[in-house]
Parts: sequence; structure tokens; C-alpha cells
Amino acid sequence: MYSLKNDYSEGAHPKILEAIVKTNLEQSEGYGKDTYCEKASELIKEKLKNDNVDIHFLCGGTQTNLTAISAFLRPYEAVISANTGHILVHETGAIESTGHKVISVDSTDGKLKKEDILSVLKEHTDEHMVKPKLVYISNSTEIGTIYTKSELEELSYVCRKNNLLLYMDGARLGSALCVKENDLTLSEISYLTDAFYIGGTKNGALFGEALVICKDSLKEEFRFNIKQKGAMMAKSRLLGIQFLELFKDDLFFEIGKHENDMADILKKEISELGYKFLVDSPSNQLFPIFKNEIIEKLEEDYSFSLWSEIDENSSCIRLVTSWATQKENVIKFIEDLEKYSI
Amino acid sequence: MYSLKNDYSEGAHPKILEAIVKTNLEQSEGYGKDTYCEKASELIKEKLKNDNVDIHFLCGGTQTNLTAISAFLRPYEAVISANTGHILVHETGAIESTGHKVISVDSTDGKLKKEDILSVLKEHTDEHMVKPKLVYISNSTEIGTIYTKSELEELSYVCRKNNLLLYMDGARLGSALCVKENDLTLSEISYLTDAFYIGGTKNGALFGEALVICKDSLKEEFRFNIKQKGAMMAKSRLLGIQFLELFKDDLFFEIGKHENDMADILKKEISELGYKFLVDSPSNQLFPIFKNEIIEKLEEDYSFSLWSEIDENSSCIRLVTSWATQKENVIKFIEDLEKYSI
Amino acid sequence: MYSLKNDYSEGAHPKILEAIVKTNLEQSEGYGKDTYCEKASELIKEKLKNDNVDIHFLCGGTQTNLTAISAFLRPYEAVISANTGHILVHETGAIESTGHKVISVDSTDGKLKKEDILSVLKEHTDEHMVKPKLVYISNSTEIGTIYTKSELEELSYVCRKNNLLLYMDGARLGSALCVKENDLTLSEISYLTDAFYIGGTKNGALFGEALVICKDSLKEEFRFNIKQKGAMMAKSRLLGIQFLELFKDDLFFEIGKHENDMADILKKEISELGYKFLVDSPSNQLFPIFKNEIIEKLEEDYSFSLWSEIDENSSCIRLVTSWATQKENVIKFIEDLEKYSI
Amino acid sequence: MYSLKNDYSEGAHPKILEAIVKTNLEQSEGYGKDTYCEKASELIKEKLKNDNVDIHFLCGGTQTNLTAISAFLRPYEAVISANTGHILVHETGAIESTGHKVISVDSTDGKLKKEDILSVLKEHTDEHMVKPKLVYISNSTEIGTIYTKSELEELSYVCRKNNLLLYMDGARLGSALCVKENDLTLSEISYLTDAFYIGGTKNGALFGEALVICKDSLKEEFRFNIKQKGAMMAKSRLLGIQFLELFKDDLFFEIGKHENDMADILKKEISELGYKFLVDSPSNQLFPIFKNEIIEKLEEDYSFSLWSEIDENSSCIRLVTSWATQKENVIKFIEDLEKYSI
Repeated sequence: MYSLKNDYSEGAHPKILEAIVKTNLEQSEGYGKDTYCEKASELIKEKLKNDNVDIHFLCGGTQTNLTAISAFLRPYEAVISANTGHILVHETGAIESTGHKVISVDSTDGKLKKEDILSVLKEHTDEHMVKPKLVYISNSTEIGTIYTKSELEELSYVCRKNNLLLYMDGARLGSALCVKENDLTLSEISYLTDAFYIGGTKNGALFGEALVICKDSLKEEFRFNIKQKGAMMAKSRLLGIQFLELFKDDLFFEIGKHENDMADILKKEISELGYKFLVDSPSNQLFPIFKNEIIEKLEEDYSFSLWSEIDENSSCIRLVTSWATQKENVIKFIEDLEKYSI
Repeated sequence: MYSLKNDYSEGAHPKILEAIVKTNLEQSEGYGKDTYCEKASELIKEKLKNDNVDIHFLCGGTQTNLTAISAFLRPYEAVISANTGHILVHETGAIESTGHKVISVDSTDGKLKKEDILSVLKEHTDEHMVKPKLVYISNSTEIGTIYTKSELEELSYVCRKNNLLLYMDGARLGSALCVKENDLTLSEISYLTDAFYIGGTKNGALFGEALVICKDSLKEEFRFNIKQKGAMMAKSRLLGIQFLELFKDDLFFEIGKHENDMADILKKEISELGYKFLVDSPSNQLFPIFKNEIIEKLEEDYSFSLWSEIDENSSCIRLVTSWATQKENVIKFIEDLEKYSI
Repeated sequence: MYSLKNDYSEGAHPKILEAIVKTNLEQSEGYGKDTYCEKASELIKEKLKNDNVDIHFLCGGTQTNLTAISAFLRPYEAVISANTGHILVHETGAIESTGHKVISVDSTDGKLKKEDILSVLKEHTDEHMVKPKLVYISNSTEIGTIYTKSELEELSYVCRKNNLLLYMDGARLGSALCVKENDLTLSEISYLTDAFYIGGTKNGALFGEALVICKDSLKEEFRFNIKQKGAMMAKSRLLGIQFLELFKDDLFFEIGKHENDMADILKKEISELGYKFLVDSPSNQLFPIFKNEIIEKLEEDYSFSLWSEIDENSSCIRLVTSWATQKENVIKFIEDLEKYSI
Repeated sequence: MYSLKNDYSEGAHPKILEAIVKTNLEQSEGYGKDTYCEKASELIKEKLKNDNVDIHFLCGGTQTNLTAISAFLRPYEAVISANTGHILVHETGAIESTGHKVISVDSTDGKLKKEDILSVLKEHTDEHMVKPKLVYISNSTEIGTIYTKSELEELSYVCRKNNLLLYMDGARLGSALCVKENDLTLSEISYLTDAFYIGGTKNGALFGEALVICKDSLKEEFRFNIKQKGAMMAKSRLLGIQFLELFKDDLFFEIGKHENDMADILKKEISELGYKFLVDSPSNQLFPIFKNEIIEKLEEDYSFSLWSEIDENSSCIRLVTSWATQKENVIKFIEDLEKYSI
């Protein structure tokens, strides 16, 4: 049984694990104040070509989203999210649990557009309604699509003009930035958004996300929020060293590229076998549509997520590649698919 | 300038005010423990033909909704509401502020159906999503429609079968129950829902809502919630005496009927002038569609809410009748409308 | 049975009730936007000799405290309160319910001192602890004592120097300001605190508190908070008109003075009968200590609160005078006490 | 510079790290549903001699406390804690952030007694106050003391009799259970408390705590809470495998014993040098009192926490031993101390 279910089925990239092992006996400060967190922070700032950001290392995505968003908003302020948004659908109401409404906007490609935001603003007119304040986007999105530079610039512009915060969930930012057609850089994201996070968990780390706070007014006393939400790691060296390793020799991008390369093979071959996709996703998540009987056969040797029912006879599944996915794995999958497709 | 903007523009029905004045110098216990609250509670139970309910008197609708719903749910449980639901749109995220997501269901008539609920349940499959637990309905709805007995029975059945709580916002329950076509009784509501409130503010009281908790497990220690949410009135005699007056000689229903009678005149005459309505509402809220130039003329002498834009040239407005609306007021409005319509 | 249990046993001062009745049929805007709220706000600003404040009218004390405090604080910020503080003890954790810790400081006279605050600040050193941000005081305190001008000035100074907010709960501010020894004015309070409320419920109104926000940065978008906490009254005319009446001809102070006069008689006569008090309170709450057998006899004709056990044989009770307490009532009480004391 | 500042300065015990490395390439289910979490859960149940518990693995202590406590309480229910309690002092109001008051009880030895609990219950009489519902204890306590079996039995009895929940924070449970005088077993704790957690972070793991829910009614749908609080780890294998390793060959207890052995040497030698301790702590935290000039000298080569000021000339410091503390380290410390003490 081989899993293409997600990009967090395996452990860490060997280089990362090695660094953890090598430093195991060192004594470090805790709670984000160790030298590895400090160095990782400095290194990421360099990569961002942006010294005017604060970087905090947290353990997981939901934790990062809820800690950041609840810290950034006043009680009556709300979030705008695409209807596919992870915080809207798959975080058990974590944002609402901190007191804030998440306003859903229908989207077919997982992305928010200028018009979506203006339309929400137009509907929210007075103090009998929540006040939309933060725009939540994911890059790549939950259905594998990515934002172009001009799309992000437009969102950034409309947010700043309307006094909204722009926050990017970068759980899969590594894959997004390594898409062939991508024209957006890490540095540009740090200038176009007010905060975003660089995902480690889904990009080769054991765990860990690097939250980058770009807007000055959001930085103040942020560590209080981390501690209060239970997100301040005692042995924080673990987070620092992983991100140091990810960015030291651009391992972060190497992994993103590898994930996409594996996905590209899958995508090309599945297409050539005549199958269609629910959405044209260029990153490490694919959404092919198969006959149910083929899916049943694939399930004998592969695990993956059933995404949605297309019609009586066919469904969409999600395939995800990771840092550990090997070319032989995807080729074997294609061969099996081909066999079942005859 | 005459207001048809809402049913809370004027003060209290004279009988209610008189009762408040008459008892002003009496010394009473406070915080809901006075004899008037007790008597009103007993009287309402009689009217409900249901002794197995707990009744609490609160000051306003949003307060009642947030106090009840936050008390009934565990942290990860969510509410299902029509997209027109007051808690979803017009209470500044009060429910989310207590930590709970409100799931929106599209509805064209303001009502929830069995299928809406089953569809939400089907989509919420595991612990990565909130758990839908409470179904919020309004009667009359925010767009003036009402639930029939068989509709409420069906909702009640699907809720009980799926271990969901059914909660009715009765801000305008007086008008709803006095609609000519209505076949639902206050008593039946107390057996079909798990909790509901009988609105006073929009039905002739100065202020006040009577929350009726029907399901045993929701009753326990409820007064702690009232106090914690700032909803326990010191001089609670004021609430008790108003509801006592409303139900002593069926003033509650007399007012509901009067509101509807006034709305019926408006509805009939506006129709006869050839105008259409956004929704066919049988209660005290009407949603006629006028040309914008007519609306502008009406605005010179009347205040009302602009509800929605229909097209470039015409809009829907909301007209609401109250206990204090006089026949001469609505006739004058019709005459003016007729004049402008030529 | 005559009640000296609290200052909210009776209804409203006749002048207030009369104003409510007189305006009952007028149509008003709702939700705090009516002309009476506006006029009352203007009038109070005049009395404050301070135009640079925002005034909002809410229904009750707990509601006002929780709405204001939760609006003023960021998630990790905490409140400092005397251990007798109403929010700490008697509001069912309303402040904690909005997410904020209330830090308790031992106090024998119900008042906070400069040293208390500095000591709390000294103990809270980093992000592993909450950040003390708002100092909550009551005037009069929960045990009837009042702040002098120099005491409030000192608190104000230490708060501003340490970037803390100073908030005064004025549930019984009327009585406090009318104490003979009082040297503090309403105007001075508006310059020395960042926000405070002027209590109506315990000072002759049917209900209602006037929240005065003095510090500019706390004013912004405050109405969103009022609505979200269920504290925005539909028929807000009721609040406006009561405060208009309270301040039009200084009825507010007349009532405060009357309450104190009645308490002074009680205090003087109880002392002359040889009894001691738990605390020397100059306002409308008294805490005499009686033998338990005397308390039992008093309970036959009077209701009051048992405050605390002093020893096996004696206890402290609380006596409260109100706008409606008549001289004959307190004289009768003294006569009865004298009779039982022989 | 050698650190005796805490028990989380170093990484993981080599056996644990080895197990993580060995399984790195295995594909596992995530979010606590992997086979390692399952096996670890089964193994711990065996050690507990208690099959009737639910075990969940979380990342850190604050996270575990806030997830569990917020799940166990209704909105108005409160926690009772010693004034030294970690949740009360050092978690940035994490419990209050979920809406619940933590009631502080003065304690000189860090432990709660029956009388403390009864006294809190006596003071909380009605719905104007929070309802005390959960008793929070730490073992070992924040000042290194431990509960005896009879003490825990008494607490358990008083809690069950008064319908309170008993929750034990076991961040340092390993050290506590390995104290020579300890007469309490892991199994007994699972029968005497309603929930507790077994700390990994401070007992040789990289990170991780095992929450054991003993009371049936607290178990239901708990995973929703974990996800909502951002505490559900994607690569949960990491948690499972660490606890599997800790309990497979009783490494957990081996580490606890080692920590205590190192602390015992320190304690004995410091005493023999004539120094006193703030509290007589038998576990891996020591609180010796030194002259400030000696502390300054020690600070040149050692890091540790300054705990409290004793008088002008002397202070209490905290020394903590860990799984990685070597005998040579503590002997060197003693030698240096001796040198400075002449």
C-alpha cells in the first residue's frame, strides 16, 4: 500500500533530521529564544530581502492561523475567505472559537478576487454586522491553484485601499513558489501581504511553520499571543534548526520543485490516458476524475482522498506528492492506472 | 414624517405601561426572582399547555440568542441558519463571539427545510470540521414568511432523529401566530422545539423576551449563563409585569393580529396599485418593489428601510407595522403612493 | 416586610417614569440613535465640562463592564481589581468569559492604591504571564467607601505613567459623589479616568447606565461591541430619556443626596445604640455588626443581606438606602433595633 | 556555561531520537490515527492497569491544559488552583482565554488540600458567581513537592462527593513518581483523577504530552477539541513513537529516577555546605537560598532561574536537573559553590 494521500505521511527530509540529531545534546534557551530560531529568522529575512519583518516559529498550520488571526483582529472584526479556505472548512471552527466570524465567498478556483472583497465590503454597512477586516488566502490554494504576481498585487492594493489586512496561509507555499508558471517571489509576498506563513510540515520538515509578520502594527507583543494559545514550544531549537536547514541551501525550494516534478509526471500521464481533472492545478495536489470502478481498484494498492462525487459513476480523488515521493512510485501508479483503464 | 421602518419605533402598549406605573413603588426581589416574573412564567406555561418548560425573561433578542445558544453548545458545535438568519447577518457576529460557527444555508423564502439540514450534516463528516448541533429558525422569518405546522413538525423530526437541537427565534412570533393562514400554536411550538423565545420588544412591550427552554438537559443552571452574559436584569419586575400583561388577556395575540391587519391593508392596496413584492409575506413585514423615483417621493413623508436593489430603476423597500400603527396611517400611505403612481 | 436589601427594589423615580409615559407614543429611531440619547449625551457632556468624550447608554452594570472591558483589551491583557471588585466576585466570570484574566489584589477598604498596582506590574514580567493593562475601580466601592480626589489623581498618574487604562465602575456613583466628605466632581472623573460609567439602575432609573469613554483610542467603532454583546437596546429612547431626566435638573444628585441622608440617619442611630460597623462607609451602603439573635428578630420585619460572619454570636449585615427610602422607614427600623437591643 | 535552568534545555533521550530516525521514511496516517499512537496508547493503558481510559497525544503542556480544561467545562464553570499553579501564573491566561475563571487558593507548599476546596465551594453560593467545577493540581508541583497517595485519595474523595472534576498536570510526573518517598502509582492516578497528563517534554522527549481521560463523560468527541485548539499534529507518528519508546522499557521511570538522583546529590551537598532551601522539594527542582554575591559568581558559569528575593542580601534560585544532567555536571557545580562559599 502506497500513500498519495498527503504531503505529511513521511517524516522529515534526511538533512533536516540529521541537523536535529547532531545538535541534540546542545543546551539551548527555550520558547523561541534559542540561537537556532534567531539564526533561522535572520536567514529567512535575507531570503525575503526584507529586514522589516518579525518571524515566529510555530508547530502547525491551524495553530498558526488561529494565533495570528485572533491577535490581529478586534472582537467584532471578521475574516473573508474563499469557500474552500482551510480555516473555513477544515479547522473545526478554530477562528470562530477565538470569537471571529469567517465570511465565505464562493470561488471556483480556490482564489479570492478583488470583486469578491469589494462585494463583501458593500454588504457590510454598519455596526449591526461584523466588520470585514482580514482577507485570508492560501497559496497554493486548497485545490492546488496558485496566485500570480499581478493577482496578489491587485488583492494587496484593494486591501490597503480599504484598510483590510491581507494574510496568506502558506502551508504549501514551497510547492506554490516552485510551480513553473509561478512569477511570485518570497520577497514580494513579504511586501504585498501583512502577514503570511511559510509552511514546513508539508514541505519536508517534521513539523513547523514560520509566521512572518510584515505590518508593523501587528508585531507588537505578539509573543504573548503565542504563549496564550499554547503555541510556544519549550524546545524551540527544533523549530529553528529545521527552518535553518530548509533555507540554508535552498532545500525549501528543492523540495517544492521535487514535489511539483512528481506531480507533473502524474498529471501528464493521467491526461494522456484520457482523464480529466476537476481543476487545473499546477502544484503538488492533483484532482483527477476516474470511474468509480477504477478508483476501487486503485484503492487496493494506494491510499488517497476521495474528494467529491462527480456523477453516479465517477468521482474526483486527490493525489498529493511529497518530498519523499519517488519517481518509481508515480510511475508504478501510472502503470497500474493504465492497466485498469483498458 | 411617519415611520413604517420597524415595529419598535414607539413605546409600549398603554396597558403594559399602565401596569409598570401602577406597581412602581412596590418593593420586589430582583434578578428574575420577583413575583411578577414568577406569575408571568406560570401564566405562559398555562398558555403553552406545557408545564415541563423553564422560562427566563431577558431584555433583547440578540442577548437572548447569544445567551441561549452559547449555553446549549459545546465548544466545537455549530449552528445551522438560513442565509437570511438574524444571528447570521444582523447581530455583529454575536454567536461567533461566544466561539461558535454559524453555517449558512441558502434559502429563498427565509425558511430552512429538511433537505438543507441533511445536506449540512452530510458535508460535516469528522473532527476536522465543526459539528452541526443546533438548528436556528425564525418565525416569522426575517423576510416575513412563517412556518406551517407540518413544516415545523418535519424540522423537529429530522432534528430529533439526528440529535440536533431546534431553536426558534420568536422576535416576531406574535405576528407569525396571528397570520390568517397560520396553523401552529404556541403550545405546539413548545413540544416541537428544544427552546424558543417569545418576543416582547417587537410586539408591544417596552422591551423583553421570554426564553422558553423545553428540553430538560438544556435547563440546568441556566441562570449562571444569564448572569455571565450581562443579561440578568436587576429590576426584573419590569420584565415579569410586561409579560404578565401581554398574556393576561391575550393582549399578545391582539397586538399580533392588529399588526397583521394593518399589513394586510397595505399589502392588498399596494397589489391593487399594480406593484409586486420581493416575497409573499403574510405577516407584519412587507417587501414591495417600487420605482426609485416613487421611493424618493415616499421618503419625503415616510421612513422605511431600503431592502435591496432590484434593477437600475427599482428597489425593494421594507414596510413594518406595529401595535401602534393606526388604520389612518396606512390609508394615508396608500393614498400618497397612489398619488405618486399616476 | 420592608426591604433595605438594595437600591433597586423599587421602580423609577416618579419624574423619570412620567417622562417615559409622556413620550410613549412618539416614534423614535432605535439602537441609541434617537434624539433623547443624543440630548442626554449632550447634557452629560455639559455636566462633565468635557466635550471630548463619547457616551453610550446600556442596560445594566455587568453588561456595561463586560462590553467596555472586552473592547478595550487585546487578548492577552488583564484587569487589576480589588478582591472585593464586582467584576471579580459577583458577575459570574463575565470578564473571563470574554477571555481576560482579572488579577485580584487584597484590599481592606475596597479601594486600590498605587502600591497595589506597582506590585502587580512588578510580578508580571514577561510573555509567560498575562499583561496587566486595565485598572478596575468602583466608586463607591462594593463596601461603601469612596475615593478622594487625591487618591484618584494618584491612581490616574500611576496608570498613565505605566500605560495602563483606568476604568471606574460607577454603579453607585450618585451616592459616592453626594457623600458629605466627597471632594471629587463628575468632571474631574472624566479627566482622570479613561472610561467610567454613571449608574442609573441603582440611582433612581428603571434601568440604564451611561458609559463615558474619555480616551480617544478607546472610542473608535465602539458601537460594534455594544451590538455584538447584545447590549444595544432597540427602543433606546428609554435610556436616553431616563438620563435626560436624571441630569436635567440635577435629579441624579438629588437622589444621591437623599440616599446618603437616609443612610446617615441609620448610621448615626445604630452607632448611638452602641453597635460597630465592619467598615466605615460614608455612602448608601452600611455594614453594621449585630448579635445573631437581633438579626433574627430584624428579619421578621425587614429584608437585608447577611454580609459575613464575625464570630459565633454575631454577624455583619448590609443595609442599603435608595431613592425610595423614606425617613419614616429608617426611623421605624431604628426603633425596632432599639427595642431588640435592650 | 552550563545550564541548570530547566529540564528542557537539551533534546531527546538518545533512544527516543533513534526511534524517530529509524521510522522516518515510513508512511503513516496523520492526526493521531497512526499505528504508533495506537500502540503507545495501548501500552500506556497496560501500565495504568486501566483499560477504561482514552489517551490523546498533544505537543505541549499549556496546549494540553487549555484543550482539556476548556473541553471539560460549561461556560460559567471555573477552575480551582493553588496560587503557584502553572495555569494560574505562567500560561498567559490561556484558561481565561477560553472563557473560564481560575480561582486562586493560597498555598505554601504548592499543593491543594481538602479544606481549600471546601472553602472555595462555601464562598461560591449562587449564579452571581462562577461555579467551581474543576480542581487543578500539579504533580510534582511548580515548587517541586509531590502528592502522597493519601493526599490524592482525599482530594479525589472530596471532588467526587462535591461533583468536581480532578485534573492533574503531570508535566513533571516522571520525576514525581520516582521520588524515593513517593507511594503513588500511575495506575492509582488514573483511578483517582478524572483526567491527567503524562509529561514527555520535561522527561526526555523532544516534545509531547499524553493526556489520559479517565471519566467517561469527558471522553466524548474530544478530538474535535484537539483540532479546534490547533493541537492536532499532522505527523502524529512523532508523538506516538516517543511515548512508545518512553514506556516500552520503562525509560520514562528511568529518566525520572535519574533526574531525582542528580537533584538528590545537589540537595545533599548544598545542605552540607550549610545552605537552606525555600521549600523542601524531593523531586528534580531545588530552591536553595544563597547570598547574592555567591549567586553572581555562580552566574559566571551556570545559568538558572532567579526565583525570589529573600532579603536584601540573599535570594532563592531554582536548579533543575534533566535526563541529560551528568553526575560530573552537578559535582562541578558543588565544587564551585564550595569554592565561593569559603
